[in-house]
Amino acid sequence: MNEAGSMDAADIGWANLDLGRAARTGFPEVVFCPGKPDDALVAIFRRLAESEGRVLGTRADPRQAALVAAALPGVRYDPVSRLLALPPAAPADPEGLVAVCSGGTADLPVAEEASQTAEFFGARVLRAYDVGVSGLHRLLGRIGEIRRANCVVAVAGMEGALASVLGGLVEVPVVAVPTSVGYGANFQGLSALLSMVNSCANGVATVNIDNGYGAGYLATQINRLACGSRRR
Amino acid sequence: MNEAGSMDAADIGWANLDLGRAARTGFPEVVFCPGKPDDALVAIFRRLAESEGRVLGTRADPRQAALVAAALPGVRYDPVSRLLALPPAAPADPEGLVAVCSGGTADLPVAEEASQTAEFFGARVLRAYDVGVSGLHRLLGRIGEIRRANCVVAVAGMEGALASVLGGLVEVPVVAVPTSVGYGANFQGLSALLSMVNSCANGVATVNIDNGYGAGYLATQINRLACGSRRR
Amino acid sequence: MNEAGSMDAADIGWANLDLGRAARTGFPEVVFCPGKPDDALVAIFRRLAESEGRVLGTRADPRQAALVAAALPGVRYDPVSRLLALPPAAPADPEGLVAVCSGGTADLPVAEEASQTAEFFGARVLRAYDVGVSGLHRLLGRIGEIRRANCVVAVAGMEGALASVLGGLVEVPVVAVPTSVGYGANFQGLSALLSMVNSCANGVATVNIDNGYGAGYLATQINRLACGSRRR
Amino acid sequence: MNEAGSMDAADIGWANLDLGRAARTGFPEVVFCPGKPDDALVAIFRRLAESEGRVLGTRADPRQAALVAAALPGVRYDPVSRLLALPPAAPADPEGLVAVCSGGTADLPVAEEASQTAEFFGARVLRAYDVGVSGLHRLLGRIGEIRRANCVVAVAGMEGALASVLGGLVEVPVVAVPTSVGYGANFQGLSALLSMVNSCANGVATVNIDNGYGAGYLATQINRLACGSRRR
Amino acid sequence: MNEAGSMDAADIGWANLDLGRAARTGFPEVVFCPGKPDDALVAIFRRLAESEGRVLGTRADPRQAALVAAALPGVRYDPVSRLLALPPAAPADPEGLVAVCSGGTADLPVAEEASQTAEFFGARVLRAYDVGVSGLHRLLGRIGEIRRANCVVAVAGMEGALASVLGGLVEVPVVAVPTSVGYGANFQGLSALLSMVNSCANGVATVNIDNGYGAGYLATQINRLACGSRRR
Amino acid sequence: MNEAGSMDAADIGWANLDLGRAARTGFPEVVFCPGKPDDALVAIFRRLAESEGRVLGTRADPRQAALVAAALPGVRYDPVSRLLALPPAAPADPEGLVAVCSGGTADLPVAEEASQTAEFFGARVLRAYDVGVSGLHRLLGRIGEIRRANCVVAVAGMEGALASVLGGLVEVPVVAVPTSVGYGANFQGLSALLSMVNSCANGVATVNIDNGYGAGYLATQINRLACGSRRR
Amino acid sequence: MNEAGSMDAADIGWANLDLGRAARTGFPEVVFCPGKPDDALVAIFRRLAESEGRVLGTRADPRQAALVAAALPGVRYDPVSRLLALPPAAPADPEGLVAVCSGGTADLPVAEEASQTAEFFGARVLRAYDVGVSGLHRLLGRIGEIRRANCVVAVAGMEGALASVLGGLVEVPVVAVPTSVGYGANFQGLSALLSMVNSCANGVATVNIDNGYGAGYLATQINRLACGSRRR
Amino acid sequence: MNEAGSMDAADIGWANLDLGRAARTGFPEVVFCPGKPDDALVAIFRRLAESEGRVLGTRADPRQAALVAAALPGVRYDPVSRLLALPPAAPADPEGLVAVCSGGTADLPVAEEASQTAEFFGARVLRAYDVGVSGLHRLLGRIGEIRRANCVVAVAGMEGALASVLGGLVEVPVVAVPTSVGYGANFQGLSALLSMVNSCANGVATVNIDNGYGAGYLATQINRLACGSRRR
Repeated sequence: MNEAGSMDAADIGWANLDLGRAARTGFPEVVFCPGKPDDALVAIFRRLAESEGRVLGTRADPRQAALVAAALPGVRYDPVSRLLALPPAAPADPEGLVAVCSGGTADLPVAEEASQTAEFFGARVLRAYDVGVSGLHRLLGRIGEIRRANCVVAVAGMEGALASVLGGLVEVPVVAVPTSVGYGANFQGLSALLSMVNSCANGVATVNIDNGYGAGYLATQINRLACGSRRR
Repeated sequence: MNEAGSMDAADIGWANLDLGRAARTGFPEVVFCPGKPDDALVAIFRRLAESEGRVLGTRADPRQAALVAAALPGVRYDPVSRLLALPPAAPADPEGLVAVCSGGTADLPVAEEASQTAEFFGARVLRAYDVGVSGLHRLLGRIGEIRRANCVVAVAGMEGALASVLGGLVEVPVVAVPTSVGYGANFQGLSALLSMVNSCANGVATVNIDNGYGAGYLATQINRLACGSRRR
Repeated sequence: MNEAGSMDAADIGWANLDLGRAARTGFPEVVFCPGKPDDALVAIFRRLAESEGRVLGTRADPRQAALVAAALPGVRYDPVSRLLALPPAAPADPEGLVAVCSGGTADLPVAEEASQTAEFFGARVLRAYDVGVSGLHRLLGRIGEIRRANCVVAVAGMEGALASVLGGLVEVPVVAVPTSVGYGANFQGLSALLSMVNSCANGVATVNIDNGYGAGYLATQINRLACGSRRR
Repeated sequence: MNEAGSMDAADIGWANLDLGRAARTGFPEVVFCPGKPDDALVAIFRRLAESEGRVLGTRADPRQAALVAAALPGVRYDPVSRLLALPPAAPADPEGLVAVCSGGTADLPVAEEASQTAEFFGARVLRAYDVGVSGLHRLLGRIGEIRRANCVVAVAGMEGALASVLGGLVEVPVVAVPTSVGYGANFQGLSALLSMVNSCANGVATVNIDNGYGAGYLATQINRLACGSRRR
Repeated sequence: MNEAGSMDAADIGWANLDLGRAARTGFPEVVFCPGKPDDALVAIFRRLAESEGRVLGTRADPRQAALVAAALPGVRYDPVSRLLALPPAAPADPEGLVAVCSGGTADLPVAEEASQTAEFFGARVLRAYDVGVSGLHRLLGRIGEIRRANCVVAVAGMEGALASVLGGLVEVPVVAVPTSVGYGANFQGLSALLSMVNSCANGVATVNIDNGYGAGYLATQINRLACGSRRR
Repeated sequence: MNEAGSMDAADIGWANLDLGRAARTGFPEVVFCPGKPDDALVAIFRRLAESEGRVLGTRADPRQAALVAAALPGVRYDPVSRLLALPPAAPADPEGLVAVCSGGTADLPVAEEASQTAEFFGARVLRAYDVGVSGLHRLLGRIGEIRRANCVVAVAGMEGALASVLGGLVEVPVVAVPTSVGYGANFQGLSALLSMVNSCANGVATVNIDNGYGAGYLATQINRLACGSRRR
Repeated sequence: MNEAGSMDAADIGWANLDLGRAARTGFPEVVFCPGKPDDALVAIFRRLAESEGRVLGTRADPRQAALVAAALPGVRYDPVSRLLALPPAAPADPEGLVAVCSGGTADLPVAEEASQTAEFFGARVLRAYDVGVSGLHRLLGRIGEIRRANCVVAVAGMEGALASVLGGLVEVPVVAVPTSVGYGANFQGLSALLSMVNSCANGVATVNIDNGYGAGYLATQINRLACGSRRR
Repeated sequence: MNEAGSMDAADIGWANLDLGRAARTGFPEVVFCPGKPDDALVAIFRRLAESEGRVLGTRADPRQAALVAAALPGVRYDPVSRLLALPPAAPADPEGLVAVCSGGTADLPVAEEASQTAEFFGARVLRAYDVGVSGLHRLLGRIGEIRRANCVVAVAGMEGALASVLGGLVEVPVVAVPTSVGYGANFQGLSALLSMVNSCANGVATVNIDNGYGAGYLATQINRLACGSRRR
C-alpha cells in the first residue's frame, strides 16, 4: 500500500495522528483545537512536538492556549488569529512573497490567521489590510507592492468584491477567503462565498468561509513552487 | 377616499388599468407584456394610448411587438431591451443625466432596458458598458463622465462587484441591478443580488434580478428631483 | 491617479481611514463599531473628529459608547438606534424632507437608525412609525404628510409589504429596509428582503437587512439632490 | 378499521381510487392530470363518473382534455384554469359567498382555478381581480363587496403583499395562494410564499405555490361551515 | 375613508394602537410582547384593558408577565404557552369545537398557544396531543372525537406529516403549524413548513413556524362561522 | 494494495470500468446512461456483457435503448423505469421479499426503477403503489403484506409523509426515496427530501431525489443479508 | 384496528407512551430528552422501566441525567454520547457486527451515540474513528476489519466524503450520518448532508444531521436481519 | 493611472476589449461566447487575432464555431470541451505538468475544458479520468503519476469527494471544479460546490460550477510559477 502514503498513524487514545504527513506533503499535521478535550489536546501537542519538532494549532481559545503553554513552555499564542505555535517564532529566513489583502478592519482575525500560517510554514508575507473596494485608492496605492508576490490572498466579507478586483490587477493566483463579516443578508458569509466563487476575474479560487488557515497553507504551497523549494 | 389616490381605474375586461397614475406619480402605467393574452395586450395599449398619449411595454417578445405595432402604427420595438414604446422617440429635450454602467457584454439587454426606460421618461443617459471590475482601467477611464450624473445605474451579473466599486467612486445614489448572467453558482442571479444587497459602499440600493426597467424608472425619479422638475 | 479619488488615506495602526471622503462624496467616513478593539475605536473617533470636525458611529454598544464619550466629551449616544454622534445635535437648519415609515414597534431601532442618520447629515425627517399594512387606515391617515417628502424610507419585517404599498402611493423613491423582526419563517429577514426586492410597485429599491444607516444615507443623498444642495 | 375510513379503494390497474371520499369528507376525489398515461386518465374519469356522478380534473392540458371529452362527452374544459369538469356547469343554486382576489393579470390562471373549483363544489364566487397593492384604490374600491364573503382567497405573485392587506381589512379567513409570477428573485414563487407565511395580519393561512385548486377547496369547506351545510 | 376601516388609532407614544379592530374584525388587537420596552408594554396593556375590557399578550417572558401583572392585577400568565390574558379565565360559555392535535411532547408550547388562544376568543377546544404519525394508532384512537370539530389545528415539527394524515381523515379545514422542533436538517422549522405547504391532502393551509397564536385565531374564525356567530 | 480491492479496472477509451466490482461487492457495475456518447455506451454494454454476463443500465432514453438493443439483441428496455437489462428476465428464483410502496401515480417511474432493480439483483418484490397518506385506509389495507418484507422502500413526492408512516408500522428498515413530483414549493424534491431526512420514525434512511435505482440496490443488500445469501 | 398496531398507548399526563412498540417492532420506545419537563421525564423513565424493563434516553444533559439517576438508581449516563441507559450495561452476548467509522475527532459524540445505541440493542460494535479521507491510509489500514461487519455507519462532517469512499469499499449497507462539524460553509451540516445524499457509491442511505441514534438503530435492524434474529 | 494597468481597451462597438491583458497578466483576453451576437463574436475574434496572434473562445456552440471558422480559417473547434482555439495546436514545447482528474464519464466536457485550456496556455497535461472515489483502486493505481504534477485539477459532480481524497494524497495545490452532474439533490452542482469548499483536506481551493476553463487557467498560473517561467 505504498502509494497511499506511509503508515505512521499514531493512535493516541481516539485521535489518529498522521505523523507521516510532513514526509508525504511537506507540511506537518496541524491541530484544529475547538472541541478537543483538554487532555487530548495537550497529548496531541506533546506527541507532535516530539515527533515533528514543530506544531501549529488553529482556533485555540485563551483557556486552551494556557493549558498547552503550561505543558509546552515554548508555545506562543496570538489572540487575534487564535493560532498556537511551536516554536514561537517563524523561520528566520522566509522565502518568496505572499501578499495578504483584506477588505475591512473586521476581517483582521481571518487575515492574520492567513498571514501567520504562511509565515509559520516559511513564507515572507506582505500585509495590505483595510483596502476594501469602497475606497479604491487605498488598494491602488499599494498594488505595486502586491504585484511582487507569488500568490495573493484576498480576505473580505460583505460582498467580497476585493477578490475580483485583485484578480484583474495581478498575474498570480488569488486565493479568496470569504468572511462572515457583514449585515443581515450576508447570511454568515454566504454572500461573500458566492461572490468569490462567481468572480468575473481569472485566476481566483475560493476556500471556506473564515478559513484563513486554509488560504495561508495554499498560498505557501504556491510560493514554495515559485521558489523552487518544493520538497522533492 | 381621496388620500389613497384618484379613482380612474379603467376595467377593460379583467385588466384594471390605473389611469390616474400619471397624475398621482408623474409616470403613466407601464405594461408588463409576458403572459398577457393577445387581445388584452392590444386593448390595453390602445386604451393607454388614448388616455395618456404615451405607452411603454416591457419584456415584449417579437410576436407581441408585431401585434401591437399592427394596431398602433407609431409603436417602436427594440429587440435588445424588448421595450415597446409609443411615441417611438424619446422626448427631444432630455433633462439632467443618468449614467448606466454594465459589467459585461452579456448584461447588455438589461442595461439597455434601463437606459431606454430612463430616456422614455425624459432623462439624458450616459452609457458606460462593459466596464466590469476584472479590468478596472476600463471603469476608471470613464469615471470622470460618470461622476457628472445625478444617479448611476450599475448592471452586473456573476459577483456583481461593479455596484460596490461605483458606490465608492461617486457621490450620488447607485441603483444596482443584479443580472442572471454567469456560470453555475450564480444561481440565476442570486449571487449578484446578495452581493449588491451586501455592498460595503454607501449609497447603493438594489432592485430585482434583471429588472432594468425598475432601475431606469427609479433613476428617472431621482434625476427629476435633482432637476427640480418633480411634478408638484 | 486623480480619477480614483484623493489620497488622504490615514493609516492609524491597521485601520486605513478615508479622510478624503467628505471632499470626494460630500459625506465623511462613518465608523462601524462592532468588533473594533477599544483602543482602535477611540483612536479612530479622535482622528476623524480632528480632521473632519464630526463623526458618526453605528451599532455601538453601551460599553463602547462610554469609552468614546470619556475620550471625546461632546459625543452623544442613543441607545435605541445605537448611534454615536459628534457633535451631539443635528444641524440646526435641516433641509428638504425625508419620511421614515415603519411597520411595527419592533422595527423602531432600525427606523431610528435611519431617521437619525438622515438628521445627522442635514435632512429634515418626518417619522411615521407603526403604520403597518395590517391596519391600513393608520398609513392612509398619514399619507398626505408623507407625500411631501423627497424620499421615503420604508422599514418593515415579517412580509415587508409596507414598501409595496408605499411605492404605489407616492411619486418619489422608496428606500426599503427589510428587518429581521418576525416569527420563524422570516429566516432572519430573508422573507422581508425577498418581498421588497420583488415589490410590484415602481420606484422601490432595497438595502441590506436591518441597515437603517444605509437607508438614511441614501435618502439624504436623494434629498440633497432635490434641494439642489449637492456639493458641486 | 372503521375509524380510518371506509374501504372503497378501487384499484384500476395501478391507480388506487378513493371512492369513499365523498362519503368521508363531503368532496369526491379530484384527478391531478399531469403525467397520467392517456389510458389511465380516461379510465379514471370514467370510473369516477360512474361511481360519483361528477368529476373534476386539474392541470389538464388541451390534448388530455380532448381525449377525456371524446370518451365522456359532457365534460367541459377551461383552457385558462386548465380544469376539466363533469357535469359542465356548476350547481344551479350556489350557496354563501367566496371572494377570490388577485394581484395582477398574470395571476389569472391560478385565480380562475380557485374560483371555478369553488363553484364546482357549490359556492357562489365573487371575483375581484387585478387589485394589487401597488394601486391600492383598486382594492379599496371593492372592499365593501369582498367583506360580504365567508372566506377570501388572495392570489398574488411577486411580493405577495395582497394577503396581508386583505387580512387587515376583513374579518373572515384569508386563504393565501402565492404564485410563481414575477421577476428573477421571486425564485418561482418562493418570495410570495415566504411573504404570505410571514403575514403580519391575523387570519391568513397559505397553500402551495400556484395551488388555486387547493385554495378553492379550502374556501368551499369554510363556506359550507358558514352556511350550515356541512355534510353531517 | 370609510372603506378602509374606522379611525380609532390611539397613538400612545410611538405605538399606534388599533382600537377599532374589535368593531372591524370581531377580535381586539393582540399584543406581541417580545422587544417592547417595559413602560410601553404596561401602557399598551392598560390602554387596551380600558378600551376593550380584555387583552391577550403573546410570547411574554416571565419578567414581562410579572410587570404587567403588577400593574393589572387580574392578568393571568401561562408559562408554557407564554400567553398573558385578561380576564384570566376564558369565556364561560365556549361555542363550537376546535381540535388541536400535536405530534410530540416538544410541540406542547406551540399547541397550548393555539388552544388557549382559541379558548380566549370563545371556542371550546379538544386537545389531542402526542399523536404523531410514527405511532399511528395513537391518532386513530382519537379520530372519532377529532372529527366532531369545526376546524382542526395540526401542530408538528420534524417532517410535519401529521397535517397530511389529518387532512385525509377529516372533512373540515386543517390549519397546519410547523414547529422548529427537530434534529439538524429541520433547519429551524423549514422542513415542517415545506412539508405542510406541500401536503398531498386537501383542505390544509399553513401558518408561520411556531405560530400557535395565528392558528388559534384562524381556527376561531372558522369555528365562529360554523356556529353562525360571526359578528354581523 | 490488496485492501482497496482487486485491480480489474478495464479502460475502454476514457471510461474506466470496474470489472472487479462483482467479486468485491456482490453486485456488477451498473451503467448510468445519460450523457454517455453513443459509441461509448454500446462499448461499455458489450464489455460488461462479455465479462460479467449481465448488465443493468439506468435512465436510458428510448434512442439509447434502441442503439444498445441493436448491438446486444437480448437486452430488454422498460420505458417506464427507463431500465435497460441483460438478460431480459429477472432471476427465476428470487429470494426473500422487498416491499416497494409509493404515494401517488406520478411516482410510478421511480417506484418501478426501484422494483425492477431489486428484481434484477435477485429479490422477490411486493408492489404496493398509490397508497399515499391522504387516504390512509389504502395503506392500512395492505400493511399485513408489507410487514412480511425484509426491507421496505417508500417512494413519495410532495411532503413525503409516507416514509414516516411506514417507519412507525414495520420493524424492518425503510429506505425512503423522495421524488420531484409536486406543486411549486416542493422545489424539485427538496420538500420530500427534507421530510424524509427529518422523519420522526425510527429505522428510516434516505437516498437521493428520484433515485429509485439506489433504493432498489440498498434494499437488495439488506434482503440478501436477511436471507443469509451474502456473498461470503 | 389490528393492522395499525396494538393499543397500549399509555397516557401519562400529556405524554402518550407507545408501550406496544417492543412487541410491534422489536425495539422499545426511546426517550428524546431535550425540552421535557423534569417531572414528565422522570415519570416517563419510570413507566417505561416498569413496563419494558429497559429504557434508552437520548440527548440528555447532565442535569437531566442526575434527576433520572436519582429516581432510578440503575441508570447509566455517558456524557460524550449523552445517552441515558437502563440497565447500565449492554447485553452480555452481542450478536453480529456493526462497524461505526468517523472522519475526525470532533465527530466523536455522534459516533458514540451510534455505537452505544447499537450496543444497547444487542449488536457487537467495531469502532474505527478518526479515519477521514484526508489521510486515506488510516481508513485503508482498517478496511479488512470493517468489511466483516453486517452494516457500516459512516459519521462525518465537513464534506462528508467518508460515506462515498466506504460505499465503494464494502458490500454491505452504509448508513451515513452527516455531522454539523466544520467551518462556515458547512451551514450546520447541510454540506455533509447533501454530499451523503448525492453519494456516487451504491448502497449508501442517509439519516438526519448529528443523528447518531437513528443510525445506530437502523444498523441494528440490519444486523438483526443478517443474524436471523428478527423478532418473528 | 499607471498602477491600474495599461490603457489599451479597444472598443469595438459595445464590447470593450482588454488588449493590454497579455502584457499585464501574461495571458491574453479569452472570449466567453454564449449570448454574443454573431457579428460581434466574429469581430472580437478577428480583432484579438490581429492584436494578440492567438485567441481562445469558451462555451462556443457548433453554429458559432462554424461562423468563426469561416472568418478565421485556422481556428479549431472541439465539440466536447466547446473550446474554439487559434492557433489550432497547443504550443509544441509544453512545460511542467498539470494533472486533470475527473470522477466520472459525465464530467468529461468540464475536464477537457480544463485540460485543453492548460494546454493552450502552454502546460503539459496528464489526464486521469473516471477515477471517482466509489472505486478507489482506480485513483490509487494512478496516484504515482499524478504526484509528479505541479498542480492537480479535481473535476467531480455528485458529492465531489474526489477533491478531498486527492488533497490528502498530493503535496501541491488542488483546484477543485464542482460539476452539475448528478441526481436531484445535487441542485445543479450546489452539492459538489459545498463539498469542495468544505474539504477536510489542506491545499484545496474551488472555482465555479462547471468552470473547467477557470481551473485550467489557474493551474497554468501555478505551473508557470513552478517552472520559473512567470512573465517577469
